[in-house]
Amino acid sequence: MANKPQWIWFPGDREIWLGNQFNNRRTERGAMFPPFWKQDSHWQTVEFSKEFTLPESDTLHIHVEGIYNFMVDGKLQFGQPDTWTLPAGRHKLNIKVNSVSTPPSLWIEGSLANSPANTDGSWLVTCEDKIWIDENGVAHGSGIYLTPGMWPGCDDPQVLPSQFQLLRTEPRNAIGHKKIAANATLLDFGRETMGYVTLHDAHGEVALYYGESEAEALDKEHCETLDKVAADGTLTIPNSKAFRYVRVEGVVADVTMLYEYLPHDKALSGRFECSDDEVNRIWQVAAYTMDLTTREFMMDGIKRDRWTWSGDAIQSYLMNYYLRFDSEAVKRTIRQLRGKDPVTAHVNTILDYTFYWFNSLADYYRYTGDAAFIAEMYPRAKTLMDYTLGRLSDDGLAIGQPDDWVFVDWVDFPMHKRGILSFEQMLLIRSLRTMQMCAALVGDTEADRYATLADDVQQKTDQLFWDDTQKAYLHALEDPLPTSPRGGDYPQRFILNRQVTKFPNMMAILYGVADADRAQEILANVMQNPDVPAITTPYMRFYELAALCQLGLQADVLPEIKAYWGGMLRNGATSFWEKYVPEDEASANEDITGFMADGIVPSPKAPHLEMYGRPYGKSLCHAWGASPIYLIGRYFLGIEPLQPGYISADGKAAWTARPTLGGLAWMRGDVPTPFGPIHIEMDGQRLTVTAPKGIGPGEIRVAGKSATIEAGQTVTLT
Amino acid sequence: MANKPQWIWFPGDREIWLGNQFNNRRTERGAMFPPFWKQDSHWQTVEFSKEFTLPESDTLHIHVEGIYNFMVDGKLQFGQPDTWTLPAGRHKLNIKVNSVSTPPSLWIEGSLANSPANTDGSWLVTCEDKIWIDENGVAHGSGIYLTPGMWPGCDDPQVLPSQFQLLRTEPRNAIGHKKIAANATLLDFGRETMGYVTLHDAHGEVALYYGESEAEALDKEHCETLDKVAADGTLTIPNSKAFRYVRVEGVVADVTMLYEYLPHDKALSGRFECSDDEVNRIWQVAAYTMDLTTREFMMDGIKRDRWTWSGDAIQSYLMNYYLRFDSEAVKRTIRQLRGKDPVTAHVNTILDYTFYWFNSLADYYRYTGDAAFIAEMYPRAKTLMDYTLGRLSDDGLAIGQPDDWVFVDWVDFPMHKRGILSFEQMLLIRSLRTMQMCAALVGDTEADRYATLADDVQQKTDQLFWDDTQKAYLHALEDPLPTSPRGGDYPQRFILNRQVTKFPNMMAILYGVADADRAQEILANVMQNPDVPAITTPYMRFYELAALCQLGLQADVLPEIKAYWGGMLRNGATSFWEKYVPEDEASANEDITGFMADGIVPSPKAPHLEMYGRPYGKSLCHAWGASPIYLIGRYFLGIEPLQPGYISADGKAAWTARPTLGGLAWMRGDVPTPFGPIHIEMDGQRLTVTAPKGIGPGEIRVAGKSATIEAGQTVTLT
Repeated sequence: MANKPQWIWFPGDREIWLGNQFNNRRTERGAMFPPFWKQDSHWQTVEFSKEFTLPESDTLHIHVEGIYNFMVDGKLQFGQPDTWTLPAGRHKLNIKVNSVSTPPSLWIEGSLANSPANTDGSWLVTCEDKIWIDENGVAHGSGIYLTPGMWPGCDDPQVLPSQFQLLRTEPRNAIGHKKIAANATLLDFGRETMGYVTLHDAHGEVALYYGESEAEALDKEHCETLDKVAADGTLTIPNSKAFRYVRVEGVVADVTMLYEYLPHDKALSGRFECSDDEVNRIWQVAAYTMDLTTREFMMDGIKRDRWTWSGDAIQSYLMNYYLRFDSEAVKRTIRQLRGKDPVTAHVNTILDYTFYWFNSLADYYRYTGDAAFIAEMYPRAKTLMDYTLGRLSDDGLAIGQPDDWVFVDWVDFPMHKRGILSFEQMLLIRSLRTMQMCAALVGDTEADRYATLADDVQQKTDQLFWDDTQKAYLHALEDPLPTSPRGGDYPQRFILNRQVTKFPNMMAILYGVADADRAQEILANVMQNPDVPAITTPYMRFYELAALCQLGLQADVLPEIKAYWGGMLRNGATSFWEKYVPEDEASANEDITGFMADGIVPSPKAPHLEMYGRPYGKSLCHAWGASPIYLIGRYFLGIEPLQPGYISADGKAAWTARPTLGGLAWMRGDVPTPFGPIHIEMDGQRLTVTAPKGIGPGEIRVAGKSATIEAGQTVTLT
Repeated sequence: MANKPQWIWFPGDREIWLGNQFNNRRTERGAMFPPFWKQDSHWQTVEFSKEFTLPESDTLHIHVEGIYNFMVDGKLQFGQPDTWTLPAGRHKLNIKVNSVSTPPSLWIEGSLANSPANTDGSWLVTCEDKIWIDENGVAHGSGIYLTPGMWPGCDDPQVLPSQFQLLRTEPRNAIGHKKIAANATLLDFGRETMGYVTLHDAHGEVALYYGESEAEALDKEHCETLDKVAADGTLTIPNSKAFRYVRVEGVVADVTMLYEYLPHDKALSGRFECSDDEVNRIWQVAAYTMDLTTREFMMDGIKRDRWTWSGDAIQSYLMNYYLRFDSEAVKRTIRQLRGKDPVTAHVNTILDYTFYWFNSLADYYRYTGDAAFIAEMYPRAKTLMDYTLGRLSDDGLAIGQPDDWVFVDWVDFPMHKRGILSFEQMLLIRSLRTMQMCAALVGDTEADRYATLADDVQQKTDQLFWDDTQKAYLHALEDPLPTSPRGGDYPQRFILNRQVTKFPNMMAILYGVADADRAQEILANVMQNPDVPAITTPYMRFYELAALCQLGLQADVLPEIKAYWGGMLRNGATSFWEKYVPEDEASANEDITGFMADGIVPSPKAPHLEMYGRPYGKSLCHAWGASPIYLIGRYFLGIEPLQPGYISADGKAAWTARPTLGGLAWMRGDVPTPFGPIHIEMDGQRLTVTAPKGIGPGEIRVAGKSATIEAGQTVTLT
């Protein structure tokens, strides 16, 4: 159907509402653990409106989530009609809906084929928070009329949007059971998983202790998640949990689970295979890690974490463009993280995370070319940038204000975080360039202002932090008096911290703050300098390895991937971890014991498991652990858009394939695009590229060679 | 019980939540009609905490509205316990509660007598919207810890706070029925009322057309409220309505109603009786009008209005101090109107209404002496004042910014409202003086700043608007270019509008902006000047007549009261109206027809009923119509506090009785105070004053005479 009616709502409100539920599902040892940042609420009252002309009489069928009124051609009608017949001609509908507990939503279908009354993106919605009446009795309103929010598939009038399910479940059995005490059984589901445990024929009190590792499930006193239920027959635990192992105590005949997942389009998905089996396993486990953490929103980790974090999410988005190309999941997460105006805190309270939020718009647009979403987000981007600019230092640089969390990374070495950090300037520069791009895209005159601001921050960053002796961006202008009134010249107030870390330097490469020459200087003096402290989180390894690949060092990066992610696999990982320090694990394998005979495969032992001072505090399935998906797709298969959304302004394919074996004998794989996957096969002799079916022609570039390729065509270069 | 446990919540959130329901109950001809200003939402997640020492072991009983976690001495406990036993010693409880659809609320009772764990005002609550972790792994929070919200009587653990009822109902019968068509009956409930109609033994579709007047109930096409229900037996209409008459169409054996009201303390209430029967009826009908409009919140009118408006409410508060002294209703309304930070609009979108909100704090403190409420409101008063000061003109004067509604009054003569109105400066001056008082009370150093700002606005107001020829404050500096960039000297940008109205001039008298001499000049040249346009709303007549009484003109005001409010009575009013223009009604009585034989008393006819271009648009029960309650209590009985709450800082009674007969032969009455009512009896010869039982001694002043009076003592002056 051309305009199948959709459920519509105030844009962003469904994500705010669902995000609150999502983030509140986190538990720690059976206790609810809500996020420690601001939770917005949806607008309780919104107005939907549309003007249209009917060629003939039309009978509307109206479904609403909430209580509502119904205005036809300026006249309020009695009650809450569920059908309404309009005569032919010009009409205007205005429908106000109020709902406290769920976002006010509307669904209308006319009886005419493709009725213009059908609810879709041509309707308008406002939260209409101000009306006033002037001295002449004329009412004025300052409501801002927006395109409503909608979700693909959320269009069944019999299913209220608050009941609409994004996820699916399917039953799974454990691969191993072991009786470990009189009333206790340990189950192994074979690998990291997430879902709802079902107890069959259970009676009395049943306790469940979940473990990502065997050790955790066995440690009743310290495992991060557990459930206790009173059973009388078969029941499914209402809250999903992440686990591989479950210790079940009580009278239970059998235990299975409902695996819960976000469906994806297999035909569009990324794929990868190569001559190195370890790299293949790394890619597969990374893909599974991504699938587990991509849900209603892209979450950090599935066990105790279960929150949306902007810094984690921007990496998930980039991986997603090379794995499932699920733009809806990206949009939902970007909307949820942004929340509602007015802005009263940084995204997740973290200065850097606000910058990543801006930058995620640039990435999203680059990969999808979806200008409509940029237009939807632009007003909120602008108010968030206003907030950010209002909290700069006196000299217009990013600084952590007293209530701001300045994160950068979890580091094991001393690193001062108060003051003007060069790292944050790199993020601010890209944020301002993103705003410049978005403003230009929506035709806002602010584009020039953002460009000027970006230039200004970049010039000051170079001047203040670039050290031509060390050939590195230095760490910070430390603020010795973080609570004193701000002001004064830097030398008199701030102290230059000459520490050299990889953080600002790799961002300078990735964001183009450093030109080609300077990037080479940074490479030699920082990135490849053993005296500069190593990065120990997959989070920042993402940027580190991407920066190296950006400079063409895939051959150096491949052994790093094998050592780091291969190291996790050798330690039993079935999904990738929140943190991994190879040196800490040197003798870990020796500890592995288990009961293989019962089908239970050994799981990692401490020190893999410990973090935040808790024996099982570390998440063994963390989205930022999946970065090989991105590194391989973008820098080995080498596919990326040349123009936003892989298409030029005049409708031609605009992408490049610059595959690099980086030490592999051969590789083959698919990279998803809005027009279908691009297929690559490469060995030392030959490169074969198959273009997506949806668009052509496009240009392929490999080293000195290039070729033009038609839609669906396969081209081989030797 | 010394510390009976209360339900506690984040302060203000219950009023925000209930206020949204309250304001959304407005209907127009069966259609929901939500308010056209911003509706805030309660905080979805809040944390309650308390530290205390137990002399012995104590078992807590825990009731929660919402989902929650439970932290004891820094350790999160499993699940959602409903009892918990603590050993003797020092403890800290932290309980996070999340609830989307109702404000998160907590009730705890220990088993020990007067357990320190009992939930009451000694607990703390925070919405805790920010936590961050520094480079040393130390968590920091910027939550503001507040005294929780509580309502007297809301303390039953079996009744969730969202189910707690402030109002009561009792059955009432109609006093007249008349069959007016085959299937239609007209009922008369004898006077204006509000509640739920009950249909007895009704079958099939039943339609109800409500009327404040007979004409409205009979006019199916234009009556403001109606209901249509499908009946099958006896049913009560779920939504309350305001009416005197109901036209019922359908098969119904009998129709009664449940009268709904806010209970009040009869022993404390104000009373009045005098030698003039018309004045007695005016006082009684005004009191009934107040009782009908004082509900969960103080509403404007009960028929179609049903919203909370700050300008209407401040008058209700003042009347309330002379009628029911229901401080809880005042506090609820003040909290509801203020809503939540951050401030994004004026209260009700109206510039003047923000000022009335401030001023209501000054009045509340003056009459109640309740410093705790001022302390509760002060942070929100400060952010509202920050918002207000941020929107002043370049010269620091109140001005309607493009999105602000500047109301002043409904006027029938041309009156420009854009620019710098002298009326708004009067309100701003008193608002700043209120902030000065509040700041001093809570020990905030901003008190001096507010005093300086008030002086500055007062000086500029005198200089810009006082006209020594006309002896009046002129109307405005008109803004000819409301959308142009602001700035420049007044003569070059603004145009002095030399119109003279009563509005700024009477406020100058009431707020002490005009000194005694100037007040007399205003009296002669404005207030008593027939060339100055008359005020036609009871809303502004409130201030007009109060200003005249303030200058001792009770003898002039009494005939005004009799003419204006007596005029409404002569036109059949059983409660006082939204607007009344005596001249318009000159021949109205002649139109009265009806069917007295059937027990139906004639009701007013147009033009009483018409307003906003609708035949029954005018509300016939409007709070601002009840001002004789205030005028009589304050200026005839003449009671007012000399110190906040009728008590001096050293605990002595501090009130004055300066009764004025103003043309009455005799009068007697009660005025409520926090210590019980003060009783007055007066005629031409003798004045008898009985002090409240709760406090003494106090000083009475009558003209040149004065006396000291003990608690409960009666003193007679001749």
